[in-house]
Amino acid sequence: MEVVTVDLRSDTLSLPTADMRCAMAEAELGDDVYGEDPTVNRLQLLAAELFGKESALFVPTGTMGNLISVMCHCWQRGSEVLLGDQSHIHRFEQGGIAQLAGVHPKTIRNLPDGTFQLSELQAKYQTSADVHFASTSLICVENPIEGKVLPLSFMVQLRSVADELKLPIHLDGARVINAATALGVPPKLITKYADTANICLSKGLCAPVGSVIVGSKQFITKAKRVRKLLGGGMRQAGVLAAAGIISLNVISKKLYLDHDNAKYFAQNILSLAPDLVEVNLKHVTTNIAMFQINNAMPTKNGQTVAQEFVWRMENTSDGSKTRVKMCAFGDVTVRAVFYHQISKLDVQKALEKFELVASAWRNEL
Amino acid sequence: MEVVTVDLRSDTLSLPTADMRCAMAEAELGDDVYGEDPTVNRLQLLAAELFGKESALFVPTGTMGNLISVMCHCWQRGSEVLLGDQSHIHRFEQGGIAQLAGVHPKTIRNLPDGTFQLSELQAKYQTSADVHFASTSLICVENPIEGKVLPLSFMVQLRSVADELKLPIHLDGARVINAATALGVPPKLITKYADTANICLSKGLCAPVGSVIVGSKQFITKAKRVRKLLGGGMRQAGVLAAAGIISLNVISKKLYLDHDNAKYFAQNILSLAPDLVEVNLKHVTTNIAMFQINNAMPTKNGQTVAQEFVWRMENTSDGSKTRVKMCAFGDVTVRAVFYHQISKLDVQKALEKFELVASAWRNEL
Amino acid sequence: MEVVTVDLRSDTLSLPTADMRCAMAEAELGDDVYGEDPTVNRLQLLAAELFGKESALFVPTGTMGNLISVMCHCWQRGSEVLLGDQSHIHRFEQGGIAQLAGVHPKTIRNLPDGTFQLSELQAKYQTSADVHFASTSLICVENPIEGKVLPLSFMVQLRSVADELKLPIHLDGARVINAATALGVPPKLITKYADTANICLSKGLCAPVGSVIVGSKQFITKAKRVRKLLGGGMRQAGVLAAAGIISLNVISKKLYLDHDNAKYFAQNILSLAPDLVEVNLKHVTTNIAMFQINNAMPTKNGQTVAQEFVWRMENTSDGSKTRVKMCAFGDVTVRAVFYHQISKLDVQKALEKFELVASAWRNEL
Amino acid sequence: MEVVTVDLRSDTLSLPTADMRCAMAEAELGDDVYGEDPTVNRLQLLAAELFGKESALFVPTGTMGNLISVMCHCWQRGSEVLLGDQSHIHRFEQGGIAQLAGVHPKTIRNLPDGTFQLSELQAKYQTSADVHFASTSLICVENPIEGKVLPLSFMVQLRSVADELKLPIHLDGARVINAATALGVPPKLITKYADTANICLSKGLCAPVGSVIVGSKQFITKAKRVRKLLGGGMRQAGVLAAAGIISLNVISKKLYLDHDNAKYFAQNILSLAPDLVEVNLKHVTTNIAMFQINNAMPTKNGQTVAQEFVWRMENTSDGSKTRVKMCAFGDVTVRAVFYHQISKLDVQKALEKFELVASAWRNEL
Repeated sequence: MEVVTVDLRSDTLSLPTADMRCAMAEAELGDDVYGEDPTVNRLQLLAAELFGKESALFVPTGTMGNLISVMCHCWQRGSEVLLGDQSHIHRFEQGGIAQLAGVHPKTIRNLPDGTFQLSELQAKYQTSADVHFASTSLICVENPIEGKVLPLSFMVQLRSVADELKLPIHLDGARVINAATALGVPPKLITKYADTANICLSKGLCAPVGSVIVGSKQFITKAKRVRKLLGGGMRQAGVLAAAGIISLNVISKKLYLDHDNAKYFAQNILSLAPDLVEVNLKHVTTNIAMFQINNAMPTKNGQTVAQEFVWRMENTSDGSKTRVKMCAFGDVTVRAVFYHQISKLDVQKALEKFELVASAWRNEL
Repeated sequence: MEVVTVDLRSDTLSLPTADMRCAMAEAELGDDVYGEDPTVNRLQLLAAELFGKESALFVPTGTMGNLISVMCHCWQRGSEVLLGDQSHIHRFEQGGIAQLAGVHPKTIRNLPDGTFQLSELQAKYQTSADVHFASTSLICVENPIEGKVLPLSFMVQLRSVADELKLPIHLDGARVINAATALGVPPKLITKYADTANICLSKGLCAPVGSVIVGSKQFITKAKRVRKLLGGGMRQAGVLAAAGIISLNVISKKLYLDHDNAKYFAQNILSLAPDLVEVNLKHVTTNIAMFQINNAMPTKNGQTVAQEFVWRMENTSDGSKTRVKMCAFGDVTVRAVFYHQISKLDVQKALEKFELVASAWRNEL
Repeated sequence: MEVVTVDLRSDTLSLPTADMRCAMAEAELGDDVYGEDPTVNRLQLLAAELFGKESALFVPTGTMGNLISVMCHCWQRGSEVLLGDQSHIHRFEQGGIAQLAGVHPKTIRNLPDGTFQLSELQAKYQTSADVHFASTSLICVENPIEGKVLPLSFMVQLRSVADELKLPIHLDGARVINAATALGVPPKLITKYADTANICLSKGLCAPVGSVIVGSKQFITKAKRVRKLLGGGMRQAGVLAAAGIISLNVISKKLYLDHDNAKYFAQNILSLAPDLVEVNLKHVTTNIAMFQINNAMPTKNGQTVAQEFVWRMENTSDGSKTRVKMCAFGDVTVRAVFYHQISKLDVQKALEKFELVASAWRNEL
Repeated sequence: MEVVTVDLRSDTLSLPTADMRCAMAEAELGDDVYGEDPTVNRLQLLAAELFGKESALFVPTGTMGNLISVMCHCWQRGSEVLLGDQSHIHRFEQGGIAQLAGVHPKTIRNLPDGTFQLSELQAKYQTSADVHFASTSLICVENPIEGKVLPLSFMVQLRSVADELKLPIHLDGARVINAATALGVPPKLITKYADTANICLSKGLCAPVGSVIVGSKQFITKAKRVRKLLGGGMRQAGVLAAAGIISLNVISKKLYLDHDNAKYFAQNILSLAPDLVEVNLKHVTTNIAMFQINNAMPTKNGQTVAQEFVWRMENTSDGSKTRVKMCAFGDVTVRAVFYHQISKLDVQKALEKFELVASAWRNEL
C-alpha cells in the first residue's frame, strides 16, 4: 500500500512543468551580467509590458526583489519605510532592510482584511526637518497578503495619500497575478498604483527559481547595481528566465484553478467540521486557505493546537493512505496552499484525511 | 515692562546649578579615553552603586547610551529587539539601531499606561532556528515613558518573561530617578529588573551634558569600545562628570518638587478650563504633564489645535507679560515639563497665562 | 562572408554543455529553502567531498559566496578582515562587505606573483584590546588571483601564521580547480589550508549559474541564514545544481585544455610582436593571459592604449573576418580568458587577428 | 624625594587652562539641540570664520567629526572613500565609516612625508557606471599626519585633481592649526583646499572636550542630523564650547612653543645618542617627535624594542626621579608629543632621563 503525500505547505513547492523543462533545455543564453542573455531580456520585456512599467529585472528570489527595491527607494542615508506589521518584508525576511541596508521600518497595523488605516500612515509620516526622526522615503504594501486580495479602491486611496506626501509605493506583489485573477482584472490594473513591484515566478507560477521587479528605467538601473552588490548577478540566467516566460504567458492563466481548489477545500472543511475549525470564507479569495483550530484539541509535548493539527494531518498511524502537509501559523492558525501540481483529486484526498482527523478528535472529547 | 519666559518645552532645558559650575571649574581631570579621569571614574562608581550594577560608563547623551546598549546586547549578526511602539528608542532616535547598527526593531503596542501585553511580546519572540526570522536578542523597556511610571509589578512580570525566553532587558531609564521618586523607592529597586540601563543626567537632573549606562563589567567593557566607535570617547570629561555627581547626589533628591509642580499645573488647568483641556491626572506622576486640547479651538495656517494652543501660550499680543513655551505632541496633545529652574512662581504665571488663553478662546466661540 | 566572434573577455561567458542541458531538464527537484531539493543536496555532498570539508552550500553567485563567508566569519560586531589589495573581494564586489555587512577591510599589498608578505599581515593584525582598532577576525586569500596560482608553500606558511594568530582563512577559490589543475594536485590539497572556500561553477566550469561554498557544518548552518537574508534562497535550484554536478565531475577534468590555449596564445603573441606586447609567461599558468601593450600605440578619443588595442582586436574594418573580444584592465594591461567553448581553431583565429593589428600598428609608426 | 612624571604620550592629555575653567564656570548656556546655546553658537561662528567656511558644528570628538563628515559626503548608497593607508580615519577609528556607515574605504599609500601619489588616487577613482565598483564620492586627507605637515603645493595639486574628478575633499585637520603654525600661514589658507574639515580643540589646543567641523551651510545641516543620530547632540554644551573659544583665540597662538620643544627634544636625543635612536628631523615640524630605536636594545617578555624603550623611560628603578611616558608605535618607533602643560623644564628632565637610559643601554652591550 502506497502512501500518497499532498503537500499544501506552500506554493513555493510547485514544480516546473514539462514545457518549462523543455524551454530551459533549449534556451538561447548569454552572460546576463553583461546584459547579453537574450532569454532574460525577453522575460524582462514581457514583465515590463505585463505590469505596465518601463523596465524589469530578473532576480533570484522575491526576498531579494523586495530588498533591492527598498534599497533603491531608500537611496539616501537616514531613510525609513512605512509598511504593514503583518507584511512579509517586515516579518519573514530577517529584517534585511534594517540589517543590511540600514533602513528604519515603521509599521502600520494591518487590519483583518489586509488593508490598513490611511490616517495611521499619514500620522506616522516624518520629514527630515526634525533631527529626532528618520526621513520617510517609501510606503510598502503587500497584495495579496496572506491570500487576501486588497480592494482596488484601497489601492486608489493609498496612491492618493502617497501622492500628497510625495512618497513612492513599492508593491510586494509576490502573488499579484493571483490578486488580478481574483479581481478579474489585468495585473497592470493593480501595479499601476505602485511605482515599483516585485512579482514571484516560483510560487503559484511554477518556475523553479526567480522573481522580477518592475519600475522606471532609472529604478532598474539602480536595481542592477544593488543586485550585483547582493550577489544576485547571475550569468546564463536565461535557463531560469525561459521557465519564467512560460509562467507569465501560460501558468498565469490557470491560477483560477488553484483558487477554486482553495475555496472548495475551505468550504468543505467548514461544513465537515464546524466544531473543529473556523474559516473566514471571505478571505479565501486566492490560492491560500487560512483557518483556525478549536482550542479544545488536546496537544502533546508543548505543541500548539495548530502544530498538533498539522501533525495529525500528516501522520498515517490511523491507517490513512494520505499524508497531508500544511503549515502552522501562530498558535491556532493553519495555512493550506494550492498550486499547479495539486489536483482536484489531491484536494479530495486531503478532505478525506481531514474527516478522519476530525472524527478522531471528536472521539477523544 | 519686562516679558518673562516660562519654558516648559522640556527638562533638557534645565541649567547647571551654581554648585555644579563650581564643581566643574575645580574638577580633577585626566584623559578618560585612557581611563585616567578621576572625576569620571568617581561618577561611574557612584552610578554603579546607585543603580545596583557592577559597572557604569559616562556617555555624551542618552541617545548614545541607548544606542551603545542595544549594540552591545545585539553583538551578533542578525539580531532583533522587541520594544514598545511608543518608546523613545523607536520613535525619537532616527531609527539609529537599524540605521547604524543593523538591528531589526519589532514593536509591541504600548498601552495607554505605558506598559504592554506580555503575551504579545512572547508571541513575537523568534529564535534563529527558522531562516525567515532574525534572532530576538533583547527587550527594551522605557520607564517612565512620556512621564508615566510603570508599576513595579509590571517590571517583575517582564523580568520573569524575559528569563523564560533567556533574553536580557535594557531599560531606557532616561528619567528613572523620577520614576523612583514617584514610587518612593530607591532607583536600584527599578533597575534591578533590567540587565542594563541608561540614565540621563542632563534632563531633570540639571547636568549640562551626559548620561550614564550601567550593567555588568563585561557589558561596560564592550560599551567602551562602542562609545569610541561612535565618537563618544571624550578626553577631560571630568568637567562634565563633576556636574553629574551633583545630579545624582543632590538634585535627585529634589525631583519631587518638579512632580508637585506638574501635578499642580495639571489639576489647575483642568479646573480652570475643563471645556478647553482634557487631562488624565493618573498619568501625571512625574515631572511631565500631557493634556489634550479641545478640537473646537480655531487654528490658523493649517496648524493643528495643539500647535495653535502652544502658539497662544507663547504669544503676548494679548498684553500678557508672560511667554509660556510648551511642545505640541501629535494633533491635539500638548506637553509641559517641569524642572529645577521652574519655580512655584513660574507655575503660577503659566496658569495665569493659561486662564487668559482659555477666556480668549471662549470669547471666540 | 560571415564574421566570426572569438569572445575572450571572460570565462563567465562559458555556456552549459549539451550534457548539462539534458541533466537540467531531467533533474529531480524539491524546495531547497526547506532543504528538500535532492539534486542540490547531491551537488553539496559532492562539493564537500571534493574540497575536503564537512558541508557545502549552493549559492547563486561567487560574489554572494564570498559575502556570505565573510559575514559568517565576522559574526560579531566590530570585525575586520585582512585581504590582498588586488583581491576580487576588495576590488570588484562594490565593497559589499563594508557596505552591507559593516566589516572593515584592511588590505595587504599583493606582490606581482599574487602572494603577499606575511610579515605585513602580522603587523596589521589587531585585537579588541585597544579601543582604537576593529578586531581582526579573518584572512581572505584568492587563489588563483588574476590567473596566477599561489605556490602551495605560500598556503602552508599562511596557514601557519593564521594559526598563530588564531584567525580563520577564507579562500576565494572562484577558479581553484584551475589552480589545482596547474599544480597537478587534487583541489582539496589547496582548500585544506583554508577553513572555508568559495568555488564558482559558472566560470571555466561551464555551469550557467552558481557557486558553492564549503566549510564546517556550523559554518554552513550560519551560511544558510545569511543566504536567505541576502535573497539567495532559491526554490527548485536543482535545475542549476544538475549542471553544477557535471561541472565538478566532467568539465573540471578538461580545464587543462584551456590552460594550454592560454599559454599557446601568450607565447605566440610574444613571438609575433615583442615590439607591441609584453607578457610575463611565468604568470600564465591557468586559463588567463594578462599582457601589456606598448605605450607607443596611438589612441583615439582619450582611450587608454589597452582600450585602443581591445577596440582594434574587435573591429573588422581592416577586412578581417574575425572579431576578437578582450578586456582592458588598467591603462596598458589586457586580459584574454580561455574556456570550454574556445577551441584551438578559435585561438588560431585570434592570433591571426593579432598579427593584423600588430602589422597595422607598425605601419603607423 | 618626589617622583615627577613627564607625560609625552599624547597632546590629548593637555588640560584646560585656568582661563578656560573660569570661562566654563561663567558660560551663558542653552539647549544646543534646539540651537539655543549662545556659547556654542559663538564658538561655531568663530570656527567658521577662522577656517574660512560658511558654517561650523561643535561635536564631542574628532572621531565623531570625521565620521559625521564622511557620512554627509557619502550620503548616497554605494559610496566609497579614497584615503591614505596611514590616516587616522582608516587606522585608528575602528573602521567606523565601514562598520556604522557602510562606506567602502579604498586606501592610497602614504609616502614617508605624509603625502601620496596623485596618480594612484586617479587610478583608483571609480564611477557607478560599472556594477563591479562602489562609486568614489570623497577624498580624505590628513594634515598634519603623524606630526608631518603636508606642503601647501600638495594641497593645491590635490584640490586640482579632486576638481577634475568632481570629488569633494574632507580634511582631517585634527591638528591643522599646528600645521598652519609650522607653515606660518593662517589656518584658512590650508582649509581652503578642502570642502570640509575636522579640527580638534582637545589636543594641543587644551580644551577638555570637543572638535568642530566646518563646511557649507548645507553640509552642516546634514551634519546636525548625523550628530543627533550618533548621540552627539549634547544639551548645555556651552560649558565645553567656552573652553573651545579660548583654544581658538588664545592657545592657538602658543602652539609654536610646543613645536620648539619637540624639535629641541628631537635634536638632543639625536646628538646625545645617535647609536640608540634615529630621527628624521625634517619630519619634526609640529608638536610630535617620532623616532626609531636601535634594534640591538635587549628586550624582555616578548616586548618590542619600542615597548622596551618606553618601559625604561618610565621606570625609575635606576634611581631617576623622573618618569617619562611615551607611546610605542609599531616595533621600533616611539612617539613623544609636546603640549601646553609640558614646559621647557619638563623637556630638560625628559632629556636627562633619556641620557640615563642610553648610557645604561651602552653598559649592557
